[in-house]
Amino acid sequence: MEAQHITARARRILQQLKKLKVDCLIITKPADVTYTTGFQGDDSWAVVTKRIVYLLTDSRYTEQAQAECLNCAIIKRTGSLAEAVAKLLHRLRSAKTIAVEKSVSLADFRALSKNVPARIKSINAVIASLRSIKDDSETKAIRASAAIATKALRQVRRYIRPGITENELAGRLDFFIRKLGAKNSFETIVAFGPNASRPHHQPSPRKLRRKDSVLIDFGAKYKGYCSDITRCFAVGGSANFYKKVYDVVQQAQAAAIRVVKAGAQIVDVDTAAREVIRKNNLPIYGHGTGHGLGLEIHELPFVKDHSKGNLKAGEVITIEPGVYITGKLGVRIEDDVLVTETGCKVLTRDCPHLKV
Amino acid sequence: MEAQHITARARRILQQLKKLKVDCLIITKPADVTYTTGFQGDDSWAVVTKRIVYLLTDSRYTEQAQAECLNCAIIKRTGSLAEAVAKLLHRLRSAKTIAVEKSVSLADFRALSKNVPARIKSINAVIASLRSIKDDSETKAIRASAAIATKALRQVRRYIRPGITENELAGRLDFFIRKLGAKNSFETIVAFGPNASRPHHQPSPRKLRRKDSVLIDFGAKYKGYCSDITRCFAVGGSANFYKKVYDVVQQAQAAAIRVVKAGAQIVDVDTAAREVIRKNNLPIYGHGTGHGLGLEIHELPFVKDHSKGNLKAGEVITIEPGVYITGKLGVRIEDDVLVTETGCKVLTRDCPHLKV
Repeated sequence: MEAQHITARARRILQQLKKLKVDCLIITKPADVTYTTGFQGDDSWAVVTKRIVYLLTDSRYTEQAQAECLNCAIIKRTGSLAEAVAKLLHRLRSAKTIAVEKSVSLADFRALSKNVPARIKSINAVIASLRSIKDDSETKAIRASAAIATKALRQVRRYIRPGITENELAGRLDFFIRKLGAKNSFETIVAFGPNASRPHHQPSPRKLRRKDSVLIDFGAKYKGYCSDITRCFAVGGSANFYKKVYDVVQQAQAAAIRVVKAGAQIVDVDTAAREVIRKNNLPIYGHGTGHGLGLEIHELPFVKDHSKGNLKAGEVITIEPGVYITGKLGVRIEDDVLVTETGCKVLTRDCPHLKV
Repeated sequence: MEAQHITARARRILQQLKKLKVDCLIITKPADVTYTTGFQGDDSWAVVTKRIVYLLTDSRYTEQAQAECLNCAIIKRTGSLAEAVAKLLHRLRSAKTIAVEKSVSLADFRALSKNVPARIKSINAVIASLRSIKDDSETKAIRASAAIATKALRQVRRYIRPGITENELAGRLDFFIRKLGAKNSFETIVAFGPNASRPHHQPSPRKLRRKDSVLIDFGAKYKGYCSDITRCFAVGGSANFYKKVYDVVQQAQAAAIRVVKAGAQIVDVDTAAREVIRKNNLPIYGHGTGHGLGLEIHELPFVKDHSKGNLKAGEVITIEPGVYITGKLGVRIEDDVLVTETGCKVLTRDCPHLKV
């Protein structure tokens, strides 16, 4: 992340604060701290004032913070985060109206309210909305992360043979992601056969059979940014019903992707996918059709059946309809798309739809 | 986890609630939900009433919840968690005094306060204290998790050769953990040479040199329970100074372990380790000497220089002193110990101190 992005971000945060008549924001969510300061460690808060962005961290992270933070004043704390913030604000004095987002824990909010030398206003998330629209360095990082995930899937392909367990396949995929210099953006899901009917199945010792189906939901996290991909396929020749379901899910995904465009109603993207499944008399999935992704694997905007609002250029969302039939099968296809003025770009286009 | 543990736990929670004059507790922390219900998924809350424990989850997790939860009523929600809780409590009526722990987010607390048909009391953590003392099924799971971590370290040993990157070594270790049916209890730290001076270093493309040092901080999570181990060693023959530091850290750890016993002051464990390092004129580490572990990798009790209170039989804690010299080296040795009436049992004793 280059310096100019950090200051541009601080500037955008300050614009939001001005609207809310606030001159200082305490940032407690790790991804928001990363977004604002560049720091990628844990247990640290940021404080944005009119002139300076502060990072409050501890001795475990001071070296890392010095390397990662640009245009930030780094404060090494010894007491609690709330105490460190209070100490800073006592020293500053200039901050009169202080805010914190409502995602803060009740305990931290009360500790801040007690110690900080001014009334603390709790506000709805402001940084999440800023984060939902990616700048060029961010889409570049997401693309790079998708490329690593894709490469890892290609590398793991030769291990997909009868006898391999879900655990081992997940482990090998994770290893390739790691070897390529990234980490998992979330816990890899590998589900064979009917296990795939649980959208969040955890890999198990279940072995791949000669005739079987595979669902892999995985992603890389690279330079702090996530990708999120699901691929499904049959091994040893697919049953007709599996093939039918797969085709419907693929059509549902294509229908949703066709709707994606800056200005489109988010709910219309969701409806487009569900309609295809409904028309084919298959059960409608219980999860959303997609979600934003970036520094976090799930972030704004959420593409659900009651979503309000419109898509904006620069947002990156997953499109991931599925069909789940308990005891029988699960099929989900998931790609990551960048919303543009004229439609969208599929950032995970290169990731193969395996046919083993 | 067997049924009797769940009900025993619910009973212990109810005893705590009685003391607080509360007849219903809303549980929002994932590990607390797991502890109370057996459910290992996400995005779910539990509600403990005098007669029934409820799990509120969504369609992604209902199959999993049915398999994992014992003695629980499972409620499938469609709206937000706060709304689902409110609906349940409206229906129950019997719950008059309702509490939630202060770790809840301010947003959730306000949503609950608004929707629930009674005043909600915010209370300090009660489940965390219950969780700190492990029952037999829990120590068994931690032992199993430590055994898997140990086996994985033995398996990865042959890959520790000049030229391997931190990323690849971390990836291979994670793969063995996965193949053994577990997952990581946290992100594996592999740090070569001076990189180890950052206690929370993230694996990088840095290659292992012919003469080098290695720090590996890792753990498995098995049946929901964590282990946490750090091993350090030199390859290609160690420099005298590295060897000296290593010996001091080992002595510091042994000194701390000697103090561990039910009834011992927690701070004395911390002091014992730091004193050894101080006497040897080496820099004192900035992190704690240890922490509880169980369903979470960091839980009560925390062993720090200002810790209050005494150790209790059944607690499982790490003992992990270290010495860090920026640009030069980092050495930390970490084991997991079970506090007993007469001293402690080192659960990670079988994990080898590698000398490559």
